[in-house]
Amino acid sequence: MKSRPAIVLLSGGLDSATALAIARVSGYSPLYTLAFDYGQRHRYELVRARKLAELSGARHRQVTIDLRQFGGSALTDDIEVPKDSLADPGTDGIPVTYVPARNTVFLSFALAWAEVIEADDVFIGVNALDYSGYPDCRPEYVEAFEAMARLGTRRTRFNVHAPLVHLTKAQIIRRGIELGVDYAGTLSCYDPREQDDGVVLSCGHCDACILRRRGFAEAGVADPTMYVA
Amino acid sequence: MKSRPAIVLLSGGLDSATALAIARVSGYSPLYTLAFDYGQRHRYELVRARKLAELSGARHRQVTIDLRQFGGSALTDDIEVPKDSLADPGTDGIPVTYVPARNTVFLSFALAWAEVIEADDVFIGVNALDYSGYPDCRPEYVEAFEAMARLGTRRTRFNVHAPLVHLTKAQIIRRGIELGVDYAGTLSCYDPREQDDGVVLSCGHCDACILRRRGFAEAGVADPTMYVA
Repeated sequence: MKSRPAIVLLSGGLDSATALAIARVSGYSPLYTLAFDYGQRHRYELVRARKLAELSGARHRQVTIDLRQFGGSALTDDIEVPKDSLADPGTDGIPVTYVPARNTVFLSFALAWAEVIEADDVFIGVNALDYSGYPDCRPEYVEAFEAMARLGTRRTRFNVHAPLVHLTKAQIIRRGIELGVDYAGTLSCYDPREQDDGVVLSCGHCDACILRRRGFAEAGVADPTMYVA
Repeated sequence: MKSRPAIVLLSGGLDSATALAIARVSGYSPLYTLAFDYGQRHRYELVRARKLAELSGARHRQVTIDLRQFGGSALTDDIEVPKDSLADPGTDGIPVTYVPARNTVFLSFALAWAEVIEADDVFIGVNALDYSGYPDCRPEYVEAFEAMARLGTRRTRFNVHAPLVHLTKAQIIRRGIELGVDYAGTLSCYDPREQDDGVVLSCGHCDACILRRRGFAEAGVADPTMYVA
């Protein structure tokens, strides 16, 4: 295919690292990566995102936005991150770790950048299977964003690619391994701890760790993640 | 109608001040107002937005986002603001004062806030007549945002109200005057100047000033704006 630019939303986690590898193998070039400092509980994932971008030769940008001032999520507030069982989906089926309108805010910034660099393609590592309770991880949402973006900007052929949306975590991991993703460089944990020597350990018990561990087990791939003992 | 909360995007300009008055008279309560420090050339409009919110008893919030780092607009970059004739719509019909995906970014933050406060209604003062070159001021864009928002959040009945979308500037001004809007407290100018005594004067020659002046003239209402002599 003809070489064309793409923007990849990069969180530093397993999914977005795989989305980045898929964008590259699909022939998009140059690649631009976008990470958000949105008041999340820890910044380790931002460091991972920057390193993943460097390794892939992407042009990386980190945007600071403050979603904390609106409140409403265990990932940005003082609400306790659920441990050892998947988060209670609550009465409306949406877990407490859901951050209100997060993907919409993230994709909006990607769209603004896409207009300026004249890119028509944005990749996002959302997944409808493992995060079935998150409304902004569903394919119909992704399509609706695309439709809105085409009407609201110069990019009338804008595409949101969500190549992981129908994959299980195990399938994502297998695909990433095929593409050479080094998952040791990714961080999924909602509640990591830094050791005295600077090594960051995943808690092993939050939703993200549970899904990640299970994914590696199901994929039959050794899990390179360093968990708290 | 039953009292219910609404968020109004408030820029400090004529249109959004009118949208706020319309939200109030429509019975929404409490009212929340949201302004953005997005790297625009001047901050005077943010001061006006805060004062307008105070006067109306709304709960005001100002969010800082940096759209400048993406570049691409005369309102945030060093591109010259066009004077004395409406901005050249360019080859694609979109003026240089268009800020890439601005309304999408603004509405996304409003949506995040709406989810947290459990509001289903956001007001935006976009206008398809005076700003016909801005893709994100068209009714079909507003509807597409609404559809996306309903799919991507808990707010499955979310509404974006654009009460000015089909009005001329003169009609907006007449409606605002009926509702008691004090337009002396609003600022539309893209390139205002502050006098030594702290009074802020509108340039009178940018697109926004031209449309505003014309609007007051057509409405047959005295223009309370203080322009540079």
